[in-house]
Amino acid sequence: MNIEPIHVEGNDPRWNMPYTPGIKVRGGHLVFASGVTAAPIYHSHPHVPAEFHDVPDDPGLQAERAMENLGSVLTAAGGGFGSIVQLIRFIVDLDRNQDSINRVMAGYLGEHRAASTTVEVVRLATDPRLVLELQAVAVVPGD
Amino acid sequence: MNIEPIHVEGNDPRWNMPYTPGIKVRGGHLVFASGVTAAPIYHSHPHVPAEFHDVPDDPGLQAERAMENLGSVLTAAGGGFGSIVQLIRFIVDLDRNQDSINRVMAGYLGEHRAASTTVEVVRLATDPRLVLELQAVAVVPGD
Amino acid sequence: MNIEPIHVEGNDPRWNMPYTPGIKVRGGHLVFASGVTAAPIYHSHPHVPAEFHDVPDDPGLQAERAMENLGSVLTAAGGGFGSIVQLIRFIVDLDRNQDSINRVMAGYLGEHRAASTTVEVVRLATDPRLVLELQAVAVVPGD
Repeated sequence: MNIEPIHVEGNDPRWNMPYTPGIKVRGGHLVFASGVTAAPIYHSHPHVPAEFHDVPDDPGLQAERAMENLGSVLTAAGGGFGSIVQLIRFIVDLDRNQDSINRVMAGYLGEHRAASTTVEVVRLATDPRLVLELQAVAVVPGD
Repeated sequence: MNIEPIHVEGNDPRWNMPYTPGIKVRGGHLVFASGVTAAPIYHSHPHVPAEFHDVPDDPGLQAERAMENLGSVLTAAGGGFGSIVQLIRFIVDLDRNQDSINRVMAGYLGEHRAASTTVEVVRLATDPRLVLELQAVAVVPGD
Repeated sequence: MNIEPIHVEGNDPRWNMPYTPGIKVRGGHLVFASGVTAAPIYHSHPHVPAEFHDVPDDPGLQAERAMENLGSVLTAAGGGFGSIVQLIRFIVDLDRNQDSINRVMAGYLGEHRAASTTVEVVRLATDPRLVLELQAVAVVPGD
């Protein structure tokens, strides 16, 4: 692997950390992914609300769709979830949504740990019902 | 070019996509730009409100100024709008502002597509009237 | 140094700029750090509020803890505050908190200038009392 998790004093398996404090890129190729949500990756601009008719209200289902979307981008770039080095999560209404989002995402990320940041924003751009947007930077093998 | 747009199944010209789902850096030099707004790039710290007296209220004019600011940073770094690989847009009051912002930015970006994320935040730091901050990562030719 | 500050016309020492408009990476290794706050870097997931019992309310003290946390990550990665190339600051209630945060951070950053972005978010994920999260990208010497 070209990436190396960065840890400081104090790590312990019982914390069950879903991310690593830092991650070092030792080579390979960076991939920047656009923010993905539960809405289809490709859609009209300006937005046509009808294209988002099947966006689920459930935060866990939204996380599932967003991770599938992110996975498809990473796969197309020659990587996968294990290629993510930086993941920013923009979430609406953390109190209501973060537990289900975390549960679903843990299933997709498996043992992989990326540098990660989570903040609560007012809303997301594509559709007002969306509660999660994932923005990733990844490193994939070079040519 | 050292950058390669990443696409997954489903792309179609009729979506008129203003960004690419992912973008791969194959070489060259990364440039990280500070967030830019319609306020002057250089200003006093702590802030002096009088320096922002001519910040326009109109979101389209703000987008124009912010893009000019970003362009000047990218040019100084040896690149241009076509060098952007990641663009995060922090916007205040999406419902009111995003359509004019999108129109203006499309004119500056032309055919270039970067990985992009847009979220609605509470406010921006430099001045409470600002509604758009653009944060870019770019790749410019090596020495 | 492998990093080069990018400046456009108009810079002047009297602005006392706490960041550089852009920064170019000419070599070395990128480090992405997770968002850090005044809460301990390692903690249980799902969160256990009791682990955050000593998070200070004072924004200046929060900035001090967050910078100590960030410093420990950067040191573990082979760098330091001077290695930061991109710094995103997510702040709650800018009007109340940004002045003390800026004062404390200036002391840690010294003469170093990174590309920087600051936005006001609704809240941060780890604990509802937190008012500052710092997300950094850094470049450290290669092996």
